[in-house]
Amino acid sequence: MGFMTAKEYIESLRKMKTVVYLLGERVENFVDHPIIRPSVHSVAMTYALAQNPEYKDLMTAVSGLTGERVNRFCHIHRSTEDLINKVKMQRLLGQKTGACFQRCVGMDAFNSIYSTTFEVDKKYGTDYYKKFCTYMKYVQENDLTVDGAMTDPKGDRGRSPSQQDDPDMYLHIVEKREDGIVVTGAKAHQTGAVNSHEQLIMPTIAMKEEDKAYAVSFAVPSDAEGITMIYGRQSCDTRKLENTGCMDCGNCKFGGQEALVVFDRVFVPWDRVFLCEEYEFAGVLVERFAGYHRQSYGGCKAGVGDVLIGASATAADYNGVSKASHIKDKLIEMMHLNETLYCCGIACSAEGSPTQSGNYQIDNLLANVCKQNVTRFPYEIARLAEDIAGGLMVTMPSEKDFESPEVGEMCRKYFKGNSQTDVMDRMKILRLIENMTLGTAAVGYRTESLHGAGSPQAQRIMIGRQGKLAEKQRLAKSIAGIKE
Amino acid sequence: MGFMTAKEYIESLRKMKTVVYLLGERVENFVDHPIIRPSVHSVAMTYALAQNPEYKDLMTAVSGLTGERVNRFCHIHRSTEDLINKVKMQRLLGQKTGACFQRCVGMDAFNSIYSTTFEVDKKYGTDYYKKFCTYMKYVQENDLTVDGAMTDPKGDRGRSPSQQDDPDMYLHIVEKREDGIVVTGAKAHQTGAVNSHEQLIMPTIAMKEEDKAYAVSFAVPSDAEGITMIYGRQSCDTRKLENTGCMDCGNCKFGGQEALVVFDRVFVPWDRVFLCEEYEFAGVLVERFAGYHRQSYGGCKAGVGDVLIGASATAADYNGVSKASHIKDKLIEMMHLNETLYCCGIACSAEGSPTQSGNYQIDNLLANVCKQNVTRFPYEIARLAEDIAGGLMVTMPSEKDFESPEVGEMCRKYFKGNSQTDVMDRMKILRLIENMTLGTAAVGYRTESLHGAGSPQAQRIMIGRQGKLAEKQRLAKSIAGIKE
Amino acid sequence: MGFMTAKEYIESLRKMKTVVYLLGERVENFVDHPIIRPSVHSVAMTYALAQNPEYKDLMTAVSGLTGERVNRFCHIHRSTEDLINKVKMQRLLGQKTGACFQRCVGMDAFNSIYSTTFEVDKKYGTDYYKKFCTYMKYVQENDLTVDGAMTDPKGDRGRSPSQQDDPDMYLHIVEKREDGIVVTGAKAHQTGAVNSHEQLIMPTIAMKEEDKAYAVSFAVPSDAEGITMIYGRQSCDTRKLENTGCMDCGNCKFGGQEALVVFDRVFVPWDRVFLCEEYEFAGVLVERFAGYHRQSYGGCKAGVGDVLIGASATAADYNGVSKASHIKDKLIEMMHLNETLYCCGIACSAEGSPTQSGNYQIDNLLANVCKQNVTRFPYEIARLAEDIAGGLMVTMPSEKDFESPEVGEMCRKYFKGNSQTDVMDRMKILRLIENMTLGTAAVGYRTESLHGAGSPQAQRIMIGRQGKLAEKQRLAKSIAGIKE
Amino acid sequence: MGFMTAKEYIESLRKMKTVVYLLGERVENFVDHPIIRPSVHSVAMTYALAQNPEYKDLMTAVSGLTGERVNRFCHIHRSTEDLINKVKMQRLLGQKTGACFQRCVGMDAFNSIYSTTFEVDKKYGTDYYKKFCTYMKYVQENDLTVDGAMTDPKGDRGRSPSQQDDPDMYLHIVEKREDGIVVTGAKAHQTGAVNSHEQLIMPTIAMKEEDKAYAVSFAVPSDAEGITMIYGRQSCDTRKLENTGCMDCGNCKFGGQEALVVFDRVFVPWDRVFLCEEYEFAGVLVERFAGYHRQSYGGCKAGVGDVLIGASATAADYNGVSKASHIKDKLIEMMHLNETLYCCGIACSAEGSPTQSGNYQIDNLLANVCKQNVTRFPYEIARLAEDIAGGLMVTMPSEKDFESPEVGEMCRKYFKGNSQTDVMDRMKILRLIENMTLGTAAVGYRTESLHGAGSPQAQRIMIGRQGKLAEKQRLAKSIAGIKE
Repeated sequence: MGFMTAKEYIESLRKMKTVVYLLGERVENFVDHPIIRPSVHSVAMTYALAQNPEYKDLMTAVSGLTGERVNRFCHIHRSTEDLINKVKMQRLLGQKTGACFQRCVGMDAFNSIYSTTFEVDKKYGTDYYKKFCTYMKYVQENDLTVDGAMTDPKGDRGRSPSQQDDPDMYLHIVEKREDGIVVTGAKAHQTGAVNSHEQLIMPTIAMKEEDKAYAVSFAVPSDAEGITMIYGRQSCDTRKLENTGCMDCGNCKFGGQEALVVFDRVFVPWDRVFLCEEYEFAGVLVERFAGYHRQSYGGCKAGVGDVLIGASATAADYNGVSKASHIKDKLIEMMHLNETLYCCGIACSAEGSPTQSGNYQIDNLLANVCKQNVTRFPYEIARLAEDIAGGLMVTMPSEKDFESPEVGEMCRKYFKGNSQTDVMDRMKILRLIENMTLGTAAVGYRTESLHGAGSPQAQRIMIGRQGKLAEKQRLAKSIAGIKE
Repeated sequence: MGFMTAKEYIESLRKMKTVVYLLGERVENFVDHPIIRPSVHSVAMTYALAQNPEYKDLMTAVSGLTGERVNRFCHIHRSTEDLINKVKMQRLLGQKTGACFQRCVGMDAFNSIYSTTFEVDKKYGTDYYKKFCTYMKYVQENDLTVDGAMTDPKGDRGRSPSQQDDPDMYLHIVEKREDGIVVTGAKAHQTGAVNSHEQLIMPTIAMKEEDKAYAVSFAVPSDAEGITMIYGRQSCDTRKLENTGCMDCGNCKFGGQEALVVFDRVFVPWDRVFLCEEYEFAGVLVERFAGYHRQSYGGCKAGVGDVLIGASATAADYNGVSKASHIKDKLIEMMHLNETLYCCGIACSAEGSPTQSGNYQIDNLLANVCKQNVTRFPYEIARLAEDIAGGLMVTMPSEKDFESPEVGEMCRKYFKGNSQTDVMDRMKILRLIENMTLGTAAVGYRTESLHGAGSPQAQRIMIGRQGKLAEKQRLAKSIAGIKE
Repeated sequence: MGFMTAKEYIESLRKMKTVVYLLGERVENFVDHPIIRPSVHSVAMTYALAQNPEYKDLMTAVSGLTGERVNRFCHIHRSTEDLINKVKMQRLLGQKTGACFQRCVGMDAFNSIYSTTFEVDKKYGTDYYKKFCTYMKYVQENDLTVDGAMTDPKGDRGRSPSQQDDPDMYLHIVEKREDGIVVTGAKAHQTGAVNSHEQLIMPTIAMKEEDKAYAVSFAVPSDAEGITMIYGRQSCDTRKLENTGCMDCGNCKFGGQEALVVFDRVFVPWDRVFLCEEYEFAGVLVERFAGYHRQSYGGCKAGVGDVLIGASATAADYNGVSKASHIKDKLIEMMHLNETLYCCGIACSAEGSPTQSGNYQIDNLLANVCKQNVTRFPYEIARLAEDIAGGLMVTMPSEKDFESPEVGEMCRKYFKGNSQTDVMDRMKILRLIENMTLGTAAVGYRTESLHGAGSPQAQRIMIGRQGKLAEKQRLAKSIAGIKE
Repeated sequence: MGFMTAKEYIESLRKMKTVVYLLGERVENFVDHPIIRPSVHSVAMTYALAQNPEYKDLMTAVSGLTGERVNRFCHIHRSTEDLINKVKMQRLLGQKTGACFQRCVGMDAFNSIYSTTFEVDKKYGTDYYKKFCTYMKYVQENDLTVDGAMTDPKGDRGRSPSQQDDPDMYLHIVEKREDGIVVTGAKAHQTGAVNSHEQLIMPTIAMKEEDKAYAVSFAVPSDAEGITMIYGRQSCDTRKLENTGCMDCGNCKFGGQEALVVFDRVFVPWDRVFLCEEYEFAGVLVERFAGYHRQSYGGCKAGVGDVLIGASATAADYNGVSKASHIKDKLIEMMHLNETLYCCGIACSAEGSPTQSGNYQIDNLLANVCKQNVTRFPYEIARLAEDIAGGLMVTMPSEKDFESPEVGEMCRKYFKGNSQTDVMDRMKILRLIENMTLGTAAVGYRTESLHGAGSPQAQRIMIGRQGKLAEKQRLAKSIAGIKE
């Protein structure tokens, strides 16, 4: 035990009774729903690659809790090498799926809660850290996928949790019982929530005393009573329902997923509660999770970028223009931007340092710099991909037209590029680029590159705070001969 | 006569027997097909606004051919003021539709063929110009929408038309008869083709003598025998089939359209032939049409940009963040970029000049500069729109979920922004931004901004040719004291 | 009369007794001072070209005040064509000088004061407009160069003029006498002040009643008693003192100039006073002048850009790399950016409109967009110029080394590029690029592109105000189906 | 021994008889020449900091050759930690000097030659590696500054070394003698050459057999017979001769330096020859040196950037605008860009790997990505610095004016910013920004960021080669379902 196969993972989901709604209807068997299935496959890839000896060093690590080798997605980082390997693993998975593989949020939550509970206990003599370690062993031993859930709906942005008209706009404790707590609220934009065995909840902003009911962290199974998940719709999602081949999907194998996760008086036993009203640690937890997750994007988005660059180069081949100097230059620019993202992911890892609890955290300034670049470069890479692909990407007929007895031949005749290329291969690669720039994967590659792990302005605030401006002023004054 | 109402326009389409395929099936009544209808409405707006006294100066002009007032989309430009008003009209229509309104391609073809036929006749003593003037009167008097069709499928980009393995990769004359010519081939990416009364064909590249069968320009009704149109699919096109309200479409009223238009031995009578084998004029015609169409984008894309900026400002209001300095600054940046596009459209118009035939052409260098900016700025404007919109735009549930008896209330509860805003209004504005950045309108606002009227590299080549580099070198050498 | 020759202009300056300090010393004969002389030549070019029949339409115009043809720099704009010709004239002068030619500030002041005095008189029954027309006739008939002076030192930016610790931080009326007013204060960053016959003063910000002593506009000769000018130093200014050939200067013929102009109890007779305490018109005047001057940059900077592009292309030739595709692409990018600036200058002119007084003002939104682009693109053009020039531009020895009997031959041997090029020509063109990117002309082409006519943020505020955001929101809501 | 103090370093230079020309004249005592002195101080800082216990880990390392602690600038990297510390050391020195400190070129040459000689010996049984180790011990024990010299004048770029009209356009062996070799030619753009004890020569491009006389590497003292150095002039260099205080210099303490180093039949004994005609290793050596040096820029330029950011923040304080949101945002953008450079420097170090010889080399793809960013971001950082500084930076009078009995008081009165700031401090900080954006330090911070360690296109070629495009295409095809 300790490792599930991809198939076992999928079977384990099938056993769950998670309440999922999609397009207005309850989905009984979400694993096999055509819209959801590709996102399950993406997570499954995190299991499959862990079983591949070629990727052992990246995909697995020796747990400091159990001494056993575990999937790195369940690992508590023990060194800067671990932090670097995390980024490399994420790039690998981006390359293999061309999409969001969702399991990072859990990993980033694990590491944030691990160090924070240690510090809470130190201050308050609580036993959160011990309970969390027990929980982590359970996760590692069962190789679980866990949704690290942070973002609340937030309601009116100008008010704190306790000031909202509707008290549920932030998830909160509604009852403290002898055997546990009862919570109500919701977590929005939850990547991979439906595909996760467990929901690991964290608060979403720094808090003051009046908000202490909102300072709560805990874990529950995804199918706990009172949880309802409502699936977010993505651009082009229903192409997956069209029952043709998979050309029009672009990437019919893999995908990402987000959901609104609603908690309606959900019960959590005390041994699964990791923060309960210690409000001054809410901000610490948020900052740590955000930091780890901003690092993550230096890996996964670079991996997805690799696929988009490869698709663009292939489209150029098929269009017969791969030797044009401007095409080569655009591909170089795409690689340059993509590797810059990766550099930032690696750098904030290499500059990591141990927390009080002993696990490693990234350099927070550089992680924010990483994410800030992620809010920009994928857009330019996507623009260049569309440039190389050509307009046909958005004007070509549907797969059904290509198969039509009346017009299929016309389509195949007139959309042929150079004579060495199968016209359907040319169409497939254009649809893949469409998928990543406008379709389901664009959600992950573009909009979530902007907003995932915090919107651009959030990083700018952190860069402003951590950039040591006063120190830089001292350097300048010294050189200019100004006495302070 | 001379002006149709929007309703008359729609009725006139209904009478046509245009052969249209969509998603693999023949569409008998394309006007009322949910996927096509919004694009018909966009064209209809060009008729509706022409009847609005408020817009008389922009939307209509006095024809130099008939002395009658006509829709400006059917006008032959007679001054730089006409060129400027064209751009303003396009901006207005972009503002009213938030989408591509398709009728520009005809207008740009009219003006290109007008001046070119004049010059062909002057050289060869032919009577194309006279025939074309007769045709233009017919168009003006009947207020027709015409597809100015240029782009051939092109096959292997490294070879000329006559060198292709398949001779039909460029549209060509297959027979010259006493009463007319017979043509075969196709025009790809045809904006508004299905919604046009007529197809006005032009060659797509400069040609040499061996390609003379490809140097052909003519007009035929869209439902001429032998023409088949295959509708291009767009991101999110089938949302229009979902039979809910129209929220998930974002913009359910208006849209753009492209099609592959196949010509299989289509007959054209001599009085509708405007170029026939005078190959050395193919390049002139292409350059003129491209020039006018690159100007056009300085109007229409700025108009669509206005809608996207307005949507973003509204989303910021609904999110309760419109006073944040970074939000204000992003809106300013969007306006700045959008107005820069408009400036280029105006400048190449103001610097226009008369052709030999007397109509006005734009300044070609500046029109290329205009389009080159269009290949960049809408992408950045779209990125900023997504930034302001927030991640909810791509993670929110479907309209059906909002209407669901089981989860509708949850959706409405948790996605409420500030208390003054109706939650459904908030959702609508996010869906509109999604429509323009990822959905059906993104095809027009993003990818076609890149490739319509020629891909970026085409403009760079023209800028290189027309930038008068040698003259600039003389200026520099003179100042540096270098003797030539 | 009505036109001076360049030589007459220079002689006219020699007769003035302007008090000028430079490098800590009083300059008796500033016209012949090696550091100042090139800037005099730039202004002289505005006289020389006006006498060249080739440029008659651009350089001159028929005065609406006198019916005589005058130098366009002294002209009150009477049409959008005048506004467009202004921009073209400025581009021409930028091309001929590769530097700032300084005379625009007067022209922009003339047109701003002309329309504003008309409106002041209309409100208050004053006679400023009539006095100003008389003054303008004097300027036109004598073909004067006038410094339109706006920017005060400003002291503490957080306080209004009357709140400053030192009341002189904004120029103000210190005494009102029967025969005129007495003023004290200073105008900073005064382009061309030393080379101007007259100083035409305007207030620098919008004002309230308590600041009314600061709401003052008037004209005085540059050598009026009480005026002291202190010359600003520029990067590399003293190379002009080195008494070698002129290679190291890069551009030894032409240059720009700024000065601090101090007014110490300067007397102004009433017939030269154009605003006196009508504080609510200060803002109008500032906005108009800023608008005209932001338009100006779409001309002059594009002209200087032409020289820099030409120099870069020449450097590429001399380096033997002009055929490399990346070099060609960089030159195209430079031209693209440069023409975009020009487009904005043309567009805000073509969209101009008459004021109440009848002269023409530019479209203010587009003029601000123009200037905002000027704060960015010249920097990128300069970067690309340095890229093409190569590192030698900043590591090459001095002209004295090239002439040295000991090392001159070594220098000439080792810095030879391709065999067709005279090594000294190669050095000259690199020094010209250095001049424009790092040296004296960089002051005008870079830093003043940022700050002249208002810093970037000033334009952003105007774009925010004039972008009609509310109207854009209505467009979006209408399309999204949101009822207001 | 093993460490010199800064003072000892300066004394050691004084003892050398290096032949230096500057502004056309022989400089006898270059150490005390006002133009050269600041660049000596920059190098001296590499000695001073190595004696500071605070910086011991960064500034020194234990030599693998001697087991002794040595200055890191003389170190052969033994781990990725060494590579990372190299970058951190460079950032530190950039922070302390605000300029180029020149000693990196030697360090990068040491490490390139170390691994290359090992491989040459392995192939040919030569003893270059052993000789080089002996040389390195000498360098380490004497704590020398060495100019790693690569760039030849190159003449006609389209021809190889042996095809040039003048055979000396690339440095070459003109005689092979029993006791050594004789070489002629030159190295251009030599950073720190004058301030170095030794010149360590490498070839500048990959070579074929006909160029073997050009495939040469060796070390000689800087004052070896036959060597002449001609000092490059920098923007504003002569301000250092003005004999005022140091305000107008901006940074009068530190600076960079380049020279043309001419070799006229210079003799090199065999024990100082490290490559002699093994032409196929020329390319390897170039690529390694370029790689290390492209890494270097991720450190030094970030350090200089820190000073410029600090200066800008200080200018904002003095201007009284540091609380304006747009100012804060610009400072954040500057920090963001600057840290992105640093990230790339760290990442290519963390991803380093051992060579056959055992020393560590950087990840070459990422080092090229690092440098490519360096060719862009400092320009934008500089633009933002000028934006924050305000136009006064380029229009303010000279220091002599501020000291003038006639106008000094006016200057001090009118250039006062907020009341807490000494007007001279305000001027000093503006002059520092001018120094870094337009003056002597701009040479290093701008133009050399472009061209040092190879021009932008050189990095693009490497990125194209090393980006594994074929592998990326396989990823895309696999996901798109295309069979190869």
